[in-house]
Amino acid sequence: MRSDVKHFRCEIADGIARIALDRPERKNPLTFESYAELRDWFRDLHYADDVHAVVIMPNGGNFSSGGDVHDIIGPLTRMSMKELLAFTRMTGDLVKAMLGCGKPIISAVDGICAGAGAIMAMASDLRIATPDAKVAFLFNRVGLAGCDMGACAILPRIIGQGRAAELLYLGRSMKADEGHAWGFFNAVVETGDLEATALSMAGRIASGPTFANSMTKTMLAQEWSMSLDQAIEAEAQAQAICMQGNDFRRAYEAFAAKEKPVFEGD
Amino acid sequence: MRSDVKHFRCEIADGIARIALDRPERKNPLTFESYAELRDWFRDLHYADDVHAVVIMPNGGNFSSGGDVHDIIGPLTRMSMKELLAFTRMTGDLVKAMLGCGKPIISAVDGICAGAGAIMAMASDLRIATPDAKVAFLFNRVGLAGCDMGACAILPRIIGQGRAAELLYLGRSMKADEGHAWGFFNAVVETGDLEATALSMAGRIASGPTFANSMTKTMLAQEWSMSLDQAIEAEAQAQAICMQGNDFRRAYEAFAAKEKPVFEGD
Amino acid sequence: MRSDVKHFRCEIADGIARIALDRPERKNPLTFESYAELRDWFRDLHYADDVHAVVIMPNGGNFSSGGDVHDIIGPLTRMSMKELLAFTRMTGDLVKAMLGCGKPIISAVDGICAGAGAIMAMASDLRIATPDAKVAFLFNRVGLAGCDMGACAILPRIIGQGRAAELLYLGRSMKADEGHAWGFFNAVVETGDLEATALSMAGRIASGPTFANSMTKTMLAQEWSMSLDQAIEAEAQAQAICMQGNDFRRAYEAFAAKEKPVFEGD
Repeated sequence: MRSDVKHFRCEIADGIARIALDRPERKNPLTFESYAELRDWFRDLHYADDVHAVVIMPNGGNFSSGGDVHDIIGPLTRMSMKELLAFTRMTGDLVKAMLGCGKPIISAVDGICAGAGAIMAMASDLRIATPDAKVAFLFNRVGLAGCDMGACAILPRIIGQGRAAELLYLGRSMKADEGHAWGFFNAVVETGDLEATALSMAGRIASGPTFANSMTKTMLAQEWSMSLDQAIEAEAQAQAICMQGNDFRRAYEAFAAKEKPVFEGD
Repeated sequence: MRSDVKHFRCEIADGIARIALDRPERKNPLTFESYAELRDWFRDLHYADDVHAVVIMPNGGNFSSGGDVHDIIGPLTRMSMKELLAFTRMTGDLVKAMLGCGKPIISAVDGICAGAGAIMAMASDLRIATPDAKVAFLFNRVGLAGCDMGACAILPRIIGQGRAAELLYLGRSMKADEGHAWGFFNAVVETGDLEATALSMAGRIASGPTFANSMTKTMLAQEWSMSLDQAIEAEAQAQAICMQGNDFRRAYEAFAAKEKPVFEGD
Repeated sequence: MRSDVKHFRCEIADGIARIALDRPERKNPLTFESYAELRDWFRDLHYADDVHAVVIMPNGGNFSSGGDVHDIIGPLTRMSMKELLAFTRMTGDLVKAMLGCGKPIISAVDGICAGAGAIMAMASDLRIATPDAKVAFLFNRVGLAGCDMGACAILPRIIGQGRAAELLYLGRSMKADEGHAWGFFNAVVETGDLEATALSMAGRIASGPTFANSMTKTMLAQEWSMSLDQAIEAEAQAQAICMQGNDFRRAYEAFAAKEKPVFEGD
């Protein structure tokens, strides 16, 4: 997987890609360029076989302030509908690419995590926070609707319909302890432990059965709007595929030999 | 928006409609007449441009005891299937009208909130309770199923499938602190603060970008059963519409001028 | 309802079926035979009129360790795709049969509750735990995906999408207090109280309006993937059916006579 990106930071090691927005002096806003490059990077990730987990890191004490006021919001106020729709589809395509990339994504959230930054955290599979994390779906504070990049569909499934409605109608910040109690954050750790915790979790996932993990990610998205019977049949097929995989055999053989399985992702 | 209603209380001021059932001596049961009038009022609200948030208040220390035993349950036991279906469709139409009215609804719950009263709280966007609030989806205690006015679909999305199943199978009361911990209530406040808290929250919403808020409400319902890809495309379209709105421009101009935006709802 | 089963324990009394897996020395693993017999038993239960609630009990301090390593996992590693799909469809059919059996199911979880055992708890309507309960959706630890027997669809609706993702990607145990806070468990009770609590809850359900309870169960599954409007219409029809039932009339007459209703399930 390529790490030669221009508009965000990216390092790849040990099967884990660490990425971060990279304008810490502005709290890491998104720009037209970083949206597009992130979308393309996550799309490519679908085909990569050397990255098995992604960690989105904060930078300079903040995760992301969302769409930049000067670089994005200003120009948007002067666009035609055709141009606006091209923009909102591009931002939606970033979420689709994150959901479809086949690798679990962990957002490590510190400081400001607002607007499209909050969406990127929401569209991740797992989220870890520091006590200073402040997540704001603040679209209505800039005159927009809460339905941005999938928020009205995804946020209620993570924290419940009533809490999601509150965050989307008021645009208020969700604090770290609220986010933990509500199931948005999987863990809250001290600031100094954020990176190590996120990398450790990513490491556990990357050393697991990565082909099967990818199937888990596919099915979590795929079954979203299925009936119960459809979902159960879909899982019967998906798991049968995984049962012909070598990692399943490796786990059985390791168990029989009273050893710890070593997965190879096929 | 008209406030000349006969079977419930209604006051409109500052873009906020305050409504309440009005038989406090009986804990505010619903009747055939109040069901129908509420349904019609919420349907009309969809077209109103002078109300931007609704608060449903308790009355005399109780929210609502639900369908009146003498006025509703007695007659129902003697109805034909055609008449019963006309009734259950009318009550369902009240929920549809609340979901479709385009204005965020806040239920301010004190005391008894049972049966169809619990449904009205559930079908609201936000809910605030006093410590005395008792919410009971008590249908099975009167020999009926938990599937009333959308409860089997909506309640699990607010508090989770397992908790919803418990309330629907047992008909037991959910207390204020449970409801808060489970995400049913957005806040619990002292009885003396209930009205001010609900009106303050409604005021924040009504002074926000109300056209965009209405789009948020539409999409929270619209995306309920969409696939993830469908939801993301639907939001791309919905948000592009809002980006051509004047409130978005107002927010940008206020930000550039380091002022607080004043939204006008267009 | 027949209780003459070979591969699990089953006792029926007072309208309540108590079942348990029965290899306590191995922590009650599932085998090909017990999967199939449980599936058939739950399918038959749909037509039974003398059982109105089911309690799945632990045995020897454990609920179930899931698919047996030697009896199931070993053979699976040597099967053809046709045989594998027959197996995954059989296990999925057990979940479908539990969801479709028409009687509320309460899982009483103590000790190990892993793999397919965790799925059986998840596919129940209600869950009670002891402090020693450890629930692990450990599929990825044996090289498989988290999408097993409906887990990627059902678990997120019980505990939220983010927490479900964590359990499915890491395979880690959910402890009793976590499960309670997250809505997986409806209650946590001391080990000595588990049986009495589960039977008491089952008794309350079995002495309720059982035809209506069965409709609640049907609709909780049926409305899973409906739009809001569809769900509300479906409930209007389902509840109208229940309003012509005798239990509704019994409840009204008991209320009018200031007595406690006695339901008969028709």
